[in-house]
Amino acid sequence: METALRVGILGGSGYTGVELLRILATHPQAEVAAVTSRKAAGQPVADMFPSLRGWVDLDFADPDPGYLAEQCDVVFCGVPHGVAMHQVPALLERGVRVVDLSADFRIADRTTYERWYNETHAAPEWLERAVYGLPEVNAEPIRGARLVANPGCYPTAVQLAFLPLLEAGAVDPEGLVADAKSGASGAGREAKTHLLLAEAADSMSAYGVAGHRHLPEIEQGMTRAAAGPVEVTFVPHLAPMIRGIHADCYSRLQDPEMDVQGLFEERFKNSPFVDVMPSGSHPATRTVRGSNLCRLAVHQPKGGKQLVVLSVIDNLVKGAAGQAVQNMNLMAGLPEATGLNVPPMLP
Amino acid sequence: METALRVGILGGSGYTGVELLRILATHPQAEVAAVTSRKAAGQPVADMFPSLRGWVDLDFADPDPGYLAEQCDVVFCGVPHGVAMHQVPALLERGVRVVDLSADFRIADRTTYERWYNETHAAPEWLERAVYGLPEVNAEPIRGARLVANPGCYPTAVQLAFLPLLEAGAVDPEGLVADAKSGASGAGREAKTHLLLAEAADSMSAYGVAGHRHLPEIEQGMTRAAAGPVEVTFVPHLAPMIRGIHADCYSRLQDPEMDVQGLFEERFKNSPFVDVMPSGSHPATRTVRGSNLCRLAVHQPKGGKQLVVLSVIDNLVKGAAGQAVQNMNLMAGLPEATGLNVPPMLP
Amino acid sequence: METALRVGILGGSGYTGVELLRILATHPQAEVAAVTSRKAAGQPVADMFPSLRGWVDLDFADPDPGYLAEQCDVVFCGVPHGVAMHQVPALLERGVRVVDLSADFRIADRTTYERWYNETHAAPEWLERAVYGLPEVNAEPIRGARLVANPGCYPTAVQLAFLPLLEAGAVDPEGLVADAKSGASGAGREAKTHLLLAEAADSMSAYGVAGHRHLPEIEQGMTRAAAGPVEVTFVPHLAPMIRGIHADCYSRLQDPEMDVQGLFEERFKNSPFVDVMPSGSHPATRTVRGSNLCRLAVHQPKGGKQLVVLSVIDNLVKGAAGQAVQNMNLMAGLPEATGLNVPPMLP
Amino acid sequence: METALRVGILGGSGYTGVELLRILATHPQAEVAAVTSRKAAGQPVADMFPSLRGWVDLDFADPDPGYLAEQCDVVFCGVPHGVAMHQVPALLERGVRVVDLSADFRIADRTTYERWYNETHAAPEWLERAVYGLPEVNAEPIRGARLVANPGCYPTAVQLAFLPLLEAGAVDPEGLVADAKSGASGAGREAKTHLLLAEAADSMSAYGVAGHRHLPEIEQGMTRAAAGPVEVTFVPHLAPMIRGIHADCYSRLQDPEMDVQGLFEERFKNSPFVDVMPSGSHPATRTVRGSNLCRLAVHQPKGGKQLVVLSVIDNLVKGAAGQAVQNMNLMAGLPEATGLNVPPMLP
Repeated sequence: METALRVGILGGSGYTGVELLRILATHPQAEVAAVTSRKAAGQPVADMFPSLRGWVDLDFADPDPGYLAEQCDVVFCGVPHGVAMHQVPALLERGVRVVDLSADFRIADRTTYERWYNETHAAPEWLERAVYGLPEVNAEPIRGARLVANPGCYPTAVQLAFLPLLEAGAVDPEGLVADAKSGASGAGREAKTHLLLAEAADSMSAYGVAGHRHLPEIEQGMTRAAAGPVEVTFVPHLAPMIRGIHADCYSRLQDPEMDVQGLFEERFKNSPFVDVMPSGSHPATRTVRGSNLCRLAVHQPKGGKQLVVLSVIDNLVKGAAGQAVQNMNLMAGLPEATGLNVPPMLP
Repeated sequence: METALRVGILGGSGYTGVELLRILATHPQAEVAAVTSRKAAGQPVADMFPSLRGWVDLDFADPDPGYLAEQCDVVFCGVPHGVAMHQVPALLERGVRVVDLSADFRIADRTTYERWYNETHAAPEWLERAVYGLPEVNAEPIRGARLVANPGCYPTAVQLAFLPLLEAGAVDPEGLVADAKSGASGAGREAKTHLLLAEAADSMSAYGVAGHRHLPEIEQGMTRAAAGPVEVTFVPHLAPMIRGIHADCYSRLQDPEMDVQGLFEERFKNSPFVDVMPSGSHPATRTVRGSNLCRLAVHQPKGGKQLVVLSVIDNLVKGAAGQAVQNMNLMAGLPEATGLNVPPMLP
Repeated sequence: METALRVGILGGSGYTGVELLRILATHPQAEVAAVTSRKAAGQPVADMFPSLRGWVDLDFADPDPGYLAEQCDVVFCGVPHGVAMHQVPALLERGVRVVDLSADFRIADRTTYERWYNETHAAPEWLERAVYGLPEVNAEPIRGARLVANPGCYPTAVQLAFLPLLEAGAVDPEGLVADAKSGASGAGREAKTHLLLAEAADSMSAYGVAGHRHLPEIEQGMTRAAAGPVEVTFVPHLAPMIRGIHADCYSRLQDPEMDVQGLFEERFKNSPFVDVMPSGSHPATRTVRGSNLCRLAVHQPKGGKQLVVLSVIDNLVKGAAGQAVQNMNLMAGLPEATGLNVPPMLP
Repeated sequence: METALRVGILGGSGYTGVELLRILATHPQAEVAAVTSRKAAGQPVADMFPSLRGWVDLDFADPDPGYLAEQCDVVFCGVPHGVAMHQVPALLERGVRVVDLSADFRIADRTTYERWYNETHAAPEWLERAVYGLPEVNAEPIRGARLVANPGCYPTAVQLAFLPLLEAGAVDPEGLVADAKSGASGAGREAKTHLLLAEAADSMSAYGVAGHRHLPEIEQGMTRAAAGPVEVTFVPHLAPMIRGIHADCYSRLQDPEMDVQGLFEERFKNSPFVDVMPSGSHPATRTVRGSNLCRLAVHQPKGGKQLVVLSVIDNLVKGAAGQAVQNMNLMAGLPEATGLNVPPMLP
């Protein structure tokens, strides 16, 4: 490989950062040139993440756009929403292509964004030009994008389960339910009481039933797929595990006789990271642990109208860093799966 | 206390057994007179369950109905379904009252039982006389019962969430969904590969979507409550925790304006073990760990037709041993909560 | 009960607080009159700890010593070290008896305290009068104490394993090793990154090998027991569990022929909360979960000089709140085990 | 790569099997030609291990030595001890080279083997010719070996921590202590009650203190290193996690002034999978999760005679399958780290 892609990570001290570094460490066409962290600037990355000792020799750098633009062809943005929209434009303007893992460019409708995130959008001009980075839907636009908005973890798991049905008009667009369970890493690496092991282990609870910030993102994707309004209830849960999302997606078939399994297999036949399992399977999150796969299984209890699609991903891989690298591959004209072909870790 | 209730446990080597022993150890009106186990007969109970060292001095006895009838006023039956129906009648015939924790007497309709459990029922005459032991529904019949069929863990959590709605005709009886997550102890103490820590920890999966044996029990209870047919989809999950069930119960309100919170509060105002939390709460399973409580929380996202009721119990207490003791209290004319008034253990 | 002990908790928003409330909820001779929290003043206790809904109706109060002295006969002090020494004297001066769960009054030697805790001691006059609250050693002084310094969790587990040996001069006082593993609740309820479930689950690590603050407390107790200097290496570990300490205590017997098992049984024959298990047992922490027991097992591999004593406690009960209540019982002239006679919760 | 190594797995239905398959899936010079399982013959490997869907297309084959010899250049033997010694010779005699992951060829002294494993050794002639597969000690003999006995998981972690000290005569060979904590996968995939999640989670316990089968293997390696007798106490623990071993290795320095850190760095300067961390580090098992690394950290509390070496590995990688592949690489003349250069997975 002569000309590796020079990659930067803006805001690399969270789980997104360490997971990007893990994945990129064995990516044959990419080389990490810079990792920034305002708080940890000057500290060796491997001191914060000792798993990377021997893999990453960099120190955290200051988040300077000029420096990043000089060092990098592509930058993954791992800073929180509300911060990303202030920092990403400076990179784009310098010609760097960006995959933003925050929520700031996911919601195309500025008003919706501002209502849910309670902030004035600082870069509405880029909002319009951002491409929503779900490769199973948007591969072509992603290839040419300057700014890709990497989907949220829940929205990835939920959309992949519903899209074939909505695109085909196969289900009632009302009364859709997504009951999703996530490991604690999905909530990030910031210290919060309710995420302590002593609080979150050996317990399960729902949260945000009245309205989680991933809901408008889910609604946007599903509305586009349905080419019309959908009504979806989204109930996220904190599950006592580190990684993994298990989404149970409920809908009502228009025609109980339709071949749903065939619909799914056809829809994803060219998607290297979507595994449509045999009908009646029960995918466990551990079967995708550490990998970029989404495994789906379709159930139609008693052959009736009620459909249940089970969807599992690793929230840090297909739900974040892996999908981001998948997007980077597309943007760089590489095969979609480059550097992502590693089997899940079980047990 | 002059005349403590003499209690026996038929089949005490499983989680039901150890949990009954834990609860009964501090019950002021009951005394455990015998614990049986075919395999472990002769072995001290505290050798198998060292947590009980200093609390239980008994050895496991052979499961002899004559002996049990002599020693006990009430027997908890903890043997598996398919075995219970062969052993319970001999106790009943000797005048012992029985709380059966197996599934053998839960399904009133013999044909339904035989289809789901794939066995000819050995005691159909007692099937008719068994009282379904959900005290929040059947307190009066339980008081007079000779045989109480203690509900399953999932059916307890799910029914308490749906009953007020169905009794009041408040929701569409079609398209009901119960998405339930259970800790591994719900699957019992028998060694099975998929329940190993190395298999079940840090992972989540659904199972039995095509038809779990708790489904007909749920349908029976809900049909009775609705006084008409219901269609319910039940999706159980194995969650990486020891105890606890978190059931998310989805239904469609007939009238989005109705006061659902008030309906629940009214329905359970006399139920000492049902805690209707403030609307919008998110009960965690750990808030009922070790206790006989069911905590419920009602959600109506965006004030629409979709209703979400969250229901949490400890599967070994309200879902098994605690509810069994609650039933025993009723049968013995004791206050319902005797010996069950202990706070949950958190963290 | 006519005259229940009126109990207060100063600093009740941590794990010590919620565990004291859980235990006291069923204590037949005590009644919680006040729980304070500077940050949460005015908030219902049951909002912070929903497990206590239905058990505790109090709101958190301001930590006012006058108010506490008026309401309470005894106060448990649950504020952190460095704070306790500033707040406890005001209570003592008002005639309230105090069980302090912080480290501030555990180390009798002021210089040692100040070196390890890096603070000038604010109440050295009380340091001298404080009684170290390990009832298995100090029951008599505790009965008459105005201020009891409740031992640390590690020191409790480690001392109970070593004391019989040191008191009897049975082992070499050099080269003692305590390898101790603790659940995450031992580190408290404050949000810290390394205690997040996503950090601490499914992993094990040592910490503080160069010097943990519990070391001088352990050395103090062991020096007293040995009536001479001891050299002990203490290696604490964070284990991926909520509760429990498992301490492996290594020493070299002076005489491999001595009856160590007999020594332990004799030493603890009157200690209701120390269970000397049969020689060769392997106590698991879950066999004491939620209870005030310390289970000990003696091992002498190959009958040689090397001795291994295994010691397990629940860090929040015998290692904190339970032992504090045990101390309160002694101070109040109640039977030592009042309100603490509950079996452990297994599974 | 023209001529990939054709690899077989004899007994591939356990954790050793699935982990070998995971590692070999991305090994650039090896190709899995056959995986056997007596019980699961005919079943697709990916049905038992759905994590491998898309990676392994083989069905389990019957364990026929002729077939294996025909298909494979090297065979990993994953059947249990007592079985391996009956099946391995047939492969060796057919010219296949074998890495045996069972204990059958680890103990050079037949009498010792037979006493600890309670079996007559069926292939003593191969016992003599087997090379103990710890590459950090035996790289040269491994290169030429026909049969490599892959070390146990505990012995790997413990020996790497003690070897530099014993080889250099730096510590007292008496009174050595290895206090080791293992995740549940170390006990294998067979269903056993005490390994159930509901039994083993949220708890810690020691086992086998009187004598674990890894002890003679540890003693053998340490005696060789010390060139004289050693006395070591080995206390294994079951920790509530899936993967990982954390071994705390205690010894007494002959000379507290010696440069122990330098000794370790020098000893392992050419070992690609041993990471000597800066003195005073606290390696967590998660920092090696999924990787072939052993991370070591040296501690000398208060600069005294007592030495503590912390050693962490992933029991399924460096403690089993990874080390086996490392051995295969050496046997095949490949660079030692081929196919093993993947960063650990954290969180």
